[in-house]
Amino acid sequence: MRGEDDLDLPTYADVAAAHDRIRPYIHDTPILTSQTFNAMTGAELFFKCENFQKAGAFKARGASNAVFSLSDEQASKGVATHSSGNHGLSLSYAAGRRGIPCKVVVPRTAPEAKKAAMRGYGAEVIECEPSTTSREAVFKEVVESTGAEFVHPYNDPRVIAGQGTCAKEMFEELGPLDALIAPIGGGGMVSGSCLTLSHLAPSTKIYAAEPEQADDAYQSFRTGQIVAYDAPTTIADGLKVPLKERTWHFVRSYVTDVLLASEQEIIDAMYLTWQRMKIVMEPSCAVPLAAILRNRAVFEGKRVGVVITGGNVDLDKLPWMKS
Amino acid sequence: MRGEDDLDLPTYADVAAAHDRIRPYIHDTPILTSQTFNAMTGAELFFKCENFQKAGAFKARGASNAVFSLSDEQASKGVATHSSGNHGLSLSYAAGRRGIPCKVVVPRTAPEAKKAAMRGYGAEVIECEPSTTSREAVFKEVVESTGAEFVHPYNDPRVIAGQGTCAKEMFEELGPLDALIAPIGGGGMVSGSCLTLSHLAPSTKIYAAEPEQADDAYQSFRTGQIVAYDAPTTIADGLKVPLKERTWHFVRSYVTDVLLASEQEIIDAMYLTWQRMKIVMEPSCAVPLAAILRNRAVFEGKRVGVVITGGNVDLDKLPWMKS
Repeated sequence: MRGEDDLDLPTYADVAAAHDRIRPYIHDTPILTSQTFNAMTGAELFFKCENFQKAGAFKARGASNAVFSLSDEQASKGVATHSSGNHGLSLSYAAGRRGIPCKVVVPRTAPEAKKAAMRGYGAEVIECEPSTTSREAVFKEVVESTGAEFVHPYNDPRVIAGQGTCAKEMFEELGPLDALIAPIGGGGMVSGSCLTLSHLAPSTKIYAAEPEQADDAYQSFRTGQIVAYDAPTTIADGLKVPLKERTWHFVRSYVTDVLLASEQEIIDAMYLTWQRMKIVMEPSCAVPLAAILRNRAVFEGKRVGVVITGGNVDLDKLPWMKS
Repeated sequence: MRGEDDLDLPTYADVAAAHDRIRPYIHDTPILTSQTFNAMTGAELFFKCENFQKAGAFKARGASNAVFSLSDEQASKGVATHSSGNHGLSLSYAAGRRGIPCKVVVPRTAPEAKKAAMRGYGAEVIECEPSTTSREAVFKEVVESTGAEFVHPYNDPRVIAGQGTCAKEMFEELGPLDALIAPIGGGGMVSGSCLTLSHLAPSTKIYAAEPEQADDAYQSFRTGQIVAYDAPTTIADGLKVPLKERTWHFVRSYVTDVLLASEQEIIDAMYLTWQRMKIVMEPSCAVPLAAILRNRAVFEGKRVGVVITGGNVDLDKLPWMKS
């Protein structure tokens, strides 16, 4: 078993360096408030709108940091990744901005709009089955045949440092919050937020929100070791992947709690956000609001940052529409 | 025939006074840009997001100005209006903020979500048939029986002055633009924009965008007199109503051109905006972008303000979904 020193964990200095590096390629996204949601929750909520981010999700931050920190020699061989969608899209975007090749292994069930958008940025899309095992097998072959630099969706220090720039922007605009809540899939956004806030605002409590039907982070947090499922089913399709050792380090070291939401609670919170805030966001992004509504006492009277992680939803298949 | 002096037209001083009066009740809405749309159109577009406005549409500006400029005596008898939706919703909102009664006559075909929201603000909703004739007949009865102050959706100097605060905010943030384009139904937003920009930035050309299937403003502009249809059919349901004498004054005096878009062009522009800008907006709001895409040469190389007028769409009935 490796010690923590072997994990090559990023530091806050890496977040600050990432922010300087990626600033030309990302948006400092707006923070919206809603008196309706404040009244419903009894909290003061600040929604960081990464659905307005380049490539439609916060993952443009980590992907841009990884791509633009490569040496020219590494970069010339291109980058590659596997991703349920947004990281692949973001890596395609970042590689396109640097003008280097990008190969993305994508579950065949991922939204068509995402695959088309990756190709639009100039990436090559390679399909696999919708399971972690299939994804990893196909990907291994791709990397071995091309020599491309692997940029993992979240278990990569460059990616985690990049995601940490989101909480940095929130801190710079809002000062120290009482709490921050973000959805948790692989844990990249939560880890980056932990990295940044443990340095800038250690009093801010960090919560992770997860679908009941893909509660691997919740189970990991409760049992003290990484729990992983092969192919969980949830409408929040960005949150199916398991923690890995680097993100697990941040979750177990800095997260106050992992909170759950049911499928119906997620759909209801998503519909409510579209209807009242007038923003297009993915089901995954509705999990934090669903968790706040379910755990009102935890957040009541608090200033709470909520990360709206992405907006790349298939508009032809909305979860409240009868199909 | 009345002369123009009898029209009781608002002046720019009324816009400035309206802005001071309504500031506590409205949002200075964000202005978003999109490199995708700039690339598609060859113009530099600035989207003023009134879909994020209080009550979900720019009409909160005019309605708040009307409600908060009433004397206490007038206010105690309440306000009333007829409206295809957003003005009724906005008047309900403003009356709720002042704590006075509000009665709204609404076509029975209007989205259920809008009627429920009006009631949520405390208004009484009275249904009529979906035609201008029916609406006006039912409304007459309501006003005569209650003595409520009629606030017309657009042919009211207080409302036009209130809508003018939107272009004022755009001017204050962006300086003089080459052009501004807004959807035209009754002409309240276009008139308010004309009022403000003819004073602050007379070089800014003002365009109105209208559905081909409800092209009464286009026909009015071409023929030099108000053309009205009783019950046109278009997906852009906020734009079915005809011009009235005050809005016609501003349209014929200050508008450079009225541009048209087909139903399919409107739906395509709406889908594209949801997909790329990640914002929820009504079909009516897509008409300007559709018109810009159809008349690329008019806007190419120009700095163009585009008013996204509202976000109160029925999420269960999106125009690109098979029903």
